[in-house]
Amino acid sequence: MKLLYPTSVKLDVQSLEGFSVSLHPYDVKSSIPEEHVDADILVTWANSADNLKDAAQRLKNLKWIQSLAAGPNDVLSAGFDASTTIITTGVGLHDYPVAEHTLGLLLNGARHFYEMRDYQLQSKWPGHLGGSFPRSDFTTLRGSRVLIWGFGSIAKTLTPYLTALGANVRGIARSQGVRNGVEVYAEDKLPELLPETDALVMILPGSDSTVDVLNAERLKLLPKHAWVVNVGRGVSVDEDALADALEKGEIAGAALDVFKEEPLPESSRLYKTPNLILSPHAAGGRPQGCEGLIADNLRRFLAGQQLKNVI
Amino acid sequence: MKLLYPTSVKLDVQSLEGFSVSLHPYDVKSSIPEEHVDADILVTWANSADNLKDAAQRLKNLKWIQSLAAGPNDVLSAGFDASTTIITTGVGLHDYPVAEHTLGLLLNGARHFYEMRDYQLQSKWPGHLGGSFPRSDFTTLRGSRVLIWGFGSIAKTLTPYLTALGANVRGIARSQGVRNGVEVYAEDKLPELLPETDALVMILPGSDSTVDVLNAERLKLLPKHAWVVNVGRGVSVDEDALADALEKGEIAGAALDVFKEEPLPESSRLYKTPNLILSPHAAGGRPQGCEGLIADNLRRFLAGQQLKNVI
Repeated sequence: MKLLYPTSVKLDVQSLEGFSVSLHPYDVKSSIPEEHVDADILVTWANSADNLKDAAQRLKNLKWIQSLAAGPNDVLSAGFDASTTIITTGVGLHDYPVAEHTLGLLLNGARHFYEMRDYQLQSKWPGHLGGSFPRSDFTTLRGSRVLIWGFGSIAKTLTPYLTALGANVRGIARSQGVRNGVEVYAEDKLPELLPETDALVMILPGSDSTVDVLNAERLKLLPKHAWVVNVGRGVSVDEDALADALEKGEIAGAALDVFKEEPLPESSRLYKTPNLILSPHAAGGRPQGCEGLIADNLRRFLAGQQLKNVI
Repeated sequence: MKLLYPTSVKLDVQSLEGFSVSLHPYDVKSSIPEEHVDADILVTWANSADNLKDAAQRLKNLKWIQSLAAGPNDVLSAGFDASTTIITTGVGLHDYPVAEHTLGLLLNGARHFYEMRDYQLQSKWPGHLGGSFPRSDFTTLRGSRVLIWGFGSIAKTLTPYLTALGANVRGIARSQGVRNGVEVYAEDKLPELLPETDALVMILPGSDSTVDVLNAERLKLLPKHAWVVNVGRGVSVDEDALADALEKGEIAGAALDVFKEEPLPESSRLYKTPNLILSPHAAGGRPQGCEGLIADNLRRFLAGQQLKNVI
């Protein structure tokens, strides 16, 4: 049995030893070398489209692909034979990085670091962004009301950070209930919840049902001092409606890590929209605990058990 | 008995009622009105130098000044009669705002939001600041080693935020020991601790003994990937040595909220120093829980007891 692991992420390979499987590194940007086309298992991370397409053609013995991405669209569209190859995702490996990035974006909005930067680049001192800043605005997480729309594993990691800082957290998900001590509501409660929100954090997956769910109508329900942060998928936000709301001052700011088109084209109005913080899909991209997931799934695979994170 | 309170900060005046003291608002940027020159107690916040100088001349009945600032240099230099007037500070009122700001600056450094902003202003997509960012750098608080130099009440508020995010926190203070579960060392341990530090947070007060304590020699002991954050007082950092270290790449970055001269003059090289994040003394300036401190000290004052935070 042969497993190929990517050199595009630093893995502690010793933590994968002990199974009757030989472990071989490979370069995700080149073709798989001829001596490894007999591989049974392929671990992927940031592979080139050409690499995956080539692998789908040549790795005739492949039985399982472990992607380290949360949403491995690259693997799904490469042409692997779905009838013979199991695909598992890296859901969960990105919870900490994304949650931390989200907190950073929220504080960037609350403390106006982006605006301080604009002044710094002009060698100017933005004294007005300090203490005299109006307290009725969203200037701190302490006592603020944060609504997390899309209450999955990232939200569960993020919530304790926010509550440690004194924020009051509520969630929106498909089904209501209390999760990890947080009151989670169904989407039909949005008309009540949005007007009581200081910061709206979107962590929705990309799918037909999430397209433009944050639209002009819902943006109008937010208070004028509210911030919107999106670290889920770009499709969930009507970008033009958001830019309009920011230009008209209907909300106070937005921090976006994801966009409908990535990289965001140079012509996009979002680069110039006031009080919009742009992060280049950088929240995740640093999988944590890969070895644990790979080893656990490898054990299950060898035992003929159900794998984790099967698509 | 008459107390004057400032309108420069929103106070819940009802929380100060119940004492045999009359409460009167005043404008901190104008002269005290003639009918209030008989005041016994003056609460100050962001007063103009002229207001304080005038008050020192005209408030002949004044017995106690409660400043809401942590370091009320403005009151001390206004010419009040120290033999008849007690001065108390607002130490503790700024712990939460400063701790939150410090966390924001650390995440700004780790996630390079300032650099993303520079690209955004040019309508460019900084894809390289995302997932492929080298993991050996200081790119997350998770697992990072944070050293807090100046381990007082702000550090005690900051530490739980950092540990919630997975950082390992150690402290430096005048005397060693374990405080709030954190190992705090004396300054003589700096040569050992600095090389083991990913982020150095300075929260030192301004005094003769803290001038330039972060100098070229100590900066050289930090790893190349280390960040320096200063939210204490500007005097504690040799600014030219820091700028040199950043220009030479001897450390990875710095976020400064305080400076030797504030506002920082337009000619300062710090505006242009690479990987330097400039915040305009904005960490605090939003006192929290003023009413509790004023009411407690008012009770003590009326009872003839020792006040809190006496200078």
